[in-house]
Amino acid sequence: MFDFNYMVSTKVLFGRNKIQMLPEELKPYGKRILVVYGKRSIKKIGLYDLITTLLARNSLVYYELSGVQPNPRINSVRQGIKICREYHIDCIVAVGGGSVIDCAKTIAAGFYYESDPWDLFHLGDSAIKNALPIGTILTVTGSGSEMNGNAVISNMETEQKLAIHNDLLRPRFSILDPTYTFTVSTHQIAAGIVDIFSHVLEQYFSPTREAFVQNRIAESLLLTCIKYGPIALKEPTNYEAQAQLMWTSSLALNGLLGYGKITDWATHGIEHAVSAAYDVIHGVGLAILTPHWMNYVLNEETNYKFVEYGKNVWNIQEGNDYTVAKKGIEKTQRFFKNLGIPTTLREVGVTEKKLNDLAEKIVMHKEIGKFKKLGKKDVLMILKNAL
Amino acid sequence: MFDFNYMVSTKVLFGRNKIQMLPEELKPYGKRILVVYGKRSIKKIGLYDLITTLLARNSLVYYELSGVQPNPRINSVRQGIKICREYHIDCIVAVGGGSVIDCAKTIAAGFYYESDPWDLFHLGDSAIKNALPIGTILTVTGSGSEMNGNAVISNMETEQKLAIHNDLLRPRFSILDPTYTFTVSTHQIAAGIVDIFSHVLEQYFSPTREAFVQNRIAESLLLTCIKYGPIALKEPTNYEAQAQLMWTSSLALNGLLGYGKITDWATHGIEHAVSAAYDVIHGVGLAILTPHWMNYVLNEETNYKFVEYGKNVWNIQEGNDYTVAKKGIEKTQRFFKNLGIPTTLREVGVTEKKLNDLAEKIVMHKEIGKFKKLGKKDVLMILKNAL
Repeated sequence: MFDFNYMVSTKVLFGRNKIQMLPEELKPYGKRILVVYGKRSIKKIGLYDLITTLLARNSLVYYELSGVQPNPRINSVRQGIKICREYHIDCIVAVGGGSVIDCAKTIAAGFYYESDPWDLFHLGDSAIKNALPIGTILTVTGSGSEMNGNAVISNMETEQKLAIHNDLLRPRFSILDPTYTFTVSTHQIAAGIVDIFSHVLEQYFSPTREAFVQNRIAESLLLTCIKYGPIALKEPTNYEAQAQLMWTSSLALNGLLGYGKITDWATHGIEHAVSAAYDVIHGVGLAILTPHWMNYVLNEETNYKFVEYGKNVWNIQEGNDYTVAKKGIEKTQRFFKNLGIPTTLREVGVTEKKLNDLAEKIVMHKEIGKFKKLGKKDVLMILKNAL
Repeated sequence: MFDFNYMVSTKVLFGRNKIQMLPEELKPYGKRILVVYGKRSIKKIGLYDLITTLLARNSLVYYELSGVQPNPRINSVRQGIKICREYHIDCIVAVGGGSVIDCAKTIAAGFYYESDPWDLFHLGDSAIKNALPIGTILTVTGSGSEMNGNAVISNMETEQKLAIHNDLLRPRFSILDPTYTFTVSTHQIAAGIVDIFSHVLEQYFSPTREAFVQNRIAESLLLTCIKYGPIALKEPTNYEAQAQLMWTSSLALNGLLGYGKITDWATHGIEHAVSAAYDVIHGVGLAILTPHWMNYVLNEETNYKFVEYGKNVWNIQEGNDYTVAKKGIEKTQRFFKNLGIPTTLREVGVTEKKLNDLAEKIVMHKEIGKFKKLGKKDVLMILKNAL
């Protein structure tokens, strides 16, 4: 186990109708709120009315930034910063899934940054010196953004999708009411499940061999996805299924799995480039790429980890090590497929023509991945296999 | 999954030589420190010198409360409060295991309470309105006190051992350096392992059937104890074993396992009474009582949970449900025994004479336990079986 500093400071309010605590939670931060959200879905389920009524009744002044898209754009961030400066915003409330929350986080950091916020993604995490406080009201499960300091933003002009991390961006509080996910489309539910699953895998497949408790906890979260994913998809109003997935999603990326070990993140690196170029849904991109990443990095040296995975996650008890590893990968792919997700990049509009440029971009400065380091040739091969 | 509020605010600094961060971590709280510790062990390993040098070098003024005993006494608490008031202490640093930390927490709460601190244990958690900030430097694994708001204190005059909980008592920071546990006696290491194991079981055996992810994480922690417990006992300087146990111990009782479900705590209730009357080491008392609690509460209605436990924790795949349950209990008892811990209450000085009074005291006001409610007769039977 490597050294680490652990601080998961987000207060989670989990359960039905926890939204009632919103005004109380906002109290320490001030009176002027920016509410950030996506499209109409929060209006359809009555959440928008509920929030604005709660704010108004408690004499909180609110402004709005709506229309935040999946794969949130730097343009929305710029727009949000402008509102925050013009109206002297004290606190941002993000109502939505990962895209909305990531957009809010970047606004929060950009507010204190004098130049263009896109610079932050090039300057790196330490360029963030301060951020507005943010709170979240989660309506889509998967990103884990509600309990961490990560944000991923897309720049459509440069065809880039880049990430920043800083503990200053961790939400001060997050309201997790599983009933808000009851009306999410099955397509999005499926993508969310893959997103959780992939977050766990990126930390599970690690070159750190001594991380026993972290690995067992990781498997616990994978088993939860396998059990409750199909249930949530079939019965989106099944509270227990949605609750288990929502909480698992937060635990998957709040630090619990990754502290004390090295983590991989190659598949996310590849997917970000693909979805920046083609605007693919993140979870769909991950579902397509993950089995191909697995097959590509599987070799004599890495086999031990796939055996652990096959046995503990997929309960494959028979066959030699190689068979167990291969079966585990097959089961992973079938799990994603059974969630109704495409299995090839071609199906989501990717063409062979651009693959070389994509691979070039992905490994622009250095190799990616820690479980197995990947250069341009490797990434190109994974992309081709996934086509 | 039940509703819950989650806030694990303690900052953990995990790894070799993290003690160097102590002055930096103390900065927000003030200049006047009370260092609380037990006997000579922290002097023997050089930790005392290291801490006092670090404090002095950073112009921090420190006072000392030493001699805190296992099953810490309310008298030590009273003494500590006196020092804090007399010398205007800003922050308490607990150096030791659960006993020292629990004593420091109660001093922190008692500082702001005008009457005798023992009152707090009768008035209940909400009587704590404020507390001095505390930090911990952990030297004994097991209690989990380094990451939660619980404290257990003994009153030898009334033969009582009582608990309080308040989030105000959560340490602001905890320094977890596994090398400090290298010189802990095997006896204490064993007791610590049982303590972790029992904390997990108290939350695992629950009447809440829908707590899948919490249950899988609980099993992860149990598996870690089973794997690394015997290693730490045989090779106390095995860093990985001590590190895995130390981190598992913190996770076992910081809220992660218990949020969203009902938890039991009957065995702890019984053990506290036993160790208040006989000054038994907490982990030893738990090891003796746990299998008897299991055997007593096992019935047709509760069997399903023991089957889950037997299969997932002890990998018992054959036999009918009852056999799996029974084997799981046997394996638990053997695990404790192999750690070198006595298996009967008689061995630790308990006599039959007092058992009735003990049972009376344990269920004084109401039944204990949530997985299976226990009245006086039940508790007496468990005690007799454990004799």
